[in-house]
Amino acid sequence: MTDDHAPSDAEAPDPASHLALAADLAIGIDIGGTKIAGGVVNRRGEVLALVRAETPHRSTAPSVVENTIVTVIDGLCEQVGTDRVAAVGVGAAGFVAADRATVVFAPHLSWRHEPLREALHARTGLPVVIDNDANAAAWAEARFGAALGRSDVVMVNLGTGIGGAILIDGRIYRGRHGMAGEFGHMQIAPDGLRCECGNRGCWEQYASGRALVREACALIVAASPVAADLASRVNGDPAAITGPMITQAAMDGDALSRDLLAEIGRWLGVGLANLAAAFDPQLFVIGGGVSAAGELLLEPAREAFRRRLPGRGYRPEPEIVHAALGNHAGFIGAADLARDAVAEQWQGRQA
Amino acid sequence: MTDDHAPSDAEAPDPASHLALAADLAIGIDIGGTKIAGGVVNRRGEVLALVRAETPHRSTAPSVVENTIVTVIDGLCEQVGTDRVAAVGVGAAGFVAADRATVVFAPHLSWRHEPLREALHARTGLPVVIDNDANAAAWAEARFGAALGRSDVVMVNLGTGIGGAILIDGRIYRGRHGMAGEFGHMQIAPDGLRCECGNRGCWEQYASGRALVREACALIVAASPVAADLASRVNGDPAAITGPMITQAAMDGDALSRDLLAEIGRWLGVGLANLAAAFDPQLFVIGGGVSAAGELLLEPAREAFRRRLPGRGYRPEPEIVHAALGNHAGFIGAADLARDAVAEQWQGRQA
Repeated sequence: MTDDHAPSDAEAPDPASHLALAADLAIGIDIGGTKIAGGVVNRRGEVLALVRAETPHRSTAPSVVENTIVTVIDGLCEQVGTDRVAAVGVGAAGFVAADRATVVFAPHLSWRHEPLREALHARTGLPVVIDNDANAAAWAEARFGAALGRSDVVMVNLGTGIGGAILIDGRIYRGRHGMAGEFGHMQIAPDGLRCECGNRGCWEQYASGRALVREACALIVAASPVAADLASRVNGDPAAITGPMITQAAMDGDALSRDLLAEIGRWLGVGLANLAAAFDPQLFVIGGGVSAAGELLLEPAREAFRRRLPGRGYRPEPEIVHAALGNHAGFIGAADLARDAVAEQWQGRQA
Repeated sequence: MTDDHAPSDAEAPDPASHLALAADLAIGIDIGGTKIAGGVVNRRGEVLALVRAETPHRSTAPSVVENTIVTVIDGLCEQVGTDRVAAVGVGAAGFVAADRATVVFAPHLSWRHEPLREALHARTGLPVVIDNDANAAAWAEARFGAALGRSDVVMVNLGTGIGGAILIDGRIYRGRHGMAGEFGHMQIAPDGLRCECGNRGCWEQYASGRALVREACALIVAASPVAADLASRVNGDPAAITGPMITQAAMDGDALSRDLLAEIGRWLGVGLANLAAAFDPQLFVIGGGVSAAGELLLEPAREAFRRRLPGRGYRPEPEIVHAALGNHAGFIGAADLARDAVAEQWQGRQA
């Protein structure tokens, strides 16, 4: 576990304004498939402290993940002082129930109907709110990032898989059971590639980090001359190839890596056209690790999108933009959502 | 143009309660690709008068369609008395702008940025509201039909193509520009069948009346022995085959017709699983002409849906049910939406 130092803009606690400050800070925790990132966030979305840890493997018991989260929270509280923290928000890669208390199913973790909110509240004494990680990231982009001032937004996060979130009238739309926005498992190719979810042809098999790595890997295994650059970066070991490596190679000018990103981008555009048909948003925000490729990904996506948007020429076209907050979006949004939820609850009690 | 008689439950106008009655009735007009259906509807969703007309061909000028609509409205007003009609609602098969005044694009009509609300208001003197026809039908099902008491619903109408509508928290979700719910043009097969919209592989090429007729037609043209029953129903003329004919043959026990409906049903189920991933509704309502096939369509759809729903086993599964109001849903919903819009406007003025 790495403890990053608190940035220099961390405010010193002022005893006089203690109560006001207490409501001002919130902790956000972003639980991904490989990393847990936690941060202390103020009302302006600024990060005052940061702690990272490895996500325990999915074969470990739920309590191990819980222990790791508590350690991250403790580390953050130590940096800013527990009494300044109003709430903890957790963004988890998985299905979170509409009560925002229970992780119903997390494909990359051992959680099945895990009562995470109660467990973390019992161990930290702080109010806790759980949300889907993509919802948290979208909220951060809407409050402080690429979707600032926009009210009807669809966010697509290209990581290992695809996460999605929907902003309607300025609010996160979670669906009837809290499970809306699972765009990655929409089928776009009948009898297509097998997906970890058990189905075939899911969008995330075509437009994600996993797709990028799978294609590169196949070409290195086949000792294809077009993969010479990538192969040399991993000393010929196809298992060592990663998404960021391919993005770096593309930025360095490797033709294959550029082609692979363009192909991911085209599939991204096809899926976005489908989402435009269904949701008719004003803006798409593209985040997640793969989006670090920037225009190498987004330009082919926009082109494929434009050619497929139903009713094109007769309708306003939504913009497709890059997320602004990088991999901090998840915990910034989780923190802000938790602060809002606690404030709402407090107002409810006062009324 | 056919004027149907007013049903026997039509109330006689009572001069004493004139003002109350005036707010009680609304006219709904449903403009489909082949038919225009209009009805006078009371607050309980009951139809007090009914008028039908043929939709003018798309090669005719917008004014011809407008004339036909005005004739239908006049016919309805004559039956119940104009002073009892509070508003006119129009449901149109096409993209309706968010202002609910303009038909931006109607593939089956000659309308392009047609200011229909103003035109109809000028000619009838009545307040007019325009909406998408699937939105109108979904509203009718939510107020008086299969989705009564449900607040998070996705409606899919299988007619010649596919129309869609979304109910969130009990309200129609129209998207940023009024164009949400165009599910028929979501691509589910890359490089798939060519669609009238210009794209390939659109859902409505696989799960609609058009798909049903296309497949039957191909088998009759090929003089396939499996199509003997259908061929005999049209004296061997493939161009004469219609969706209702295939549904009737299936109900009479024709194996091919049952197979064709089951295939449409399976594609319906695949698309519904995609929409469940995106919207997470509590209920799907299936309407439109093809849905007259009932369980011959819905049972294969439910089976395909269950096998593809992401996270199945860990989440509540939305129900898939048949629409309740048949082909009256469009004008009943349009009427009710218009009455609500006028009432809201009136309350706005009073406040």
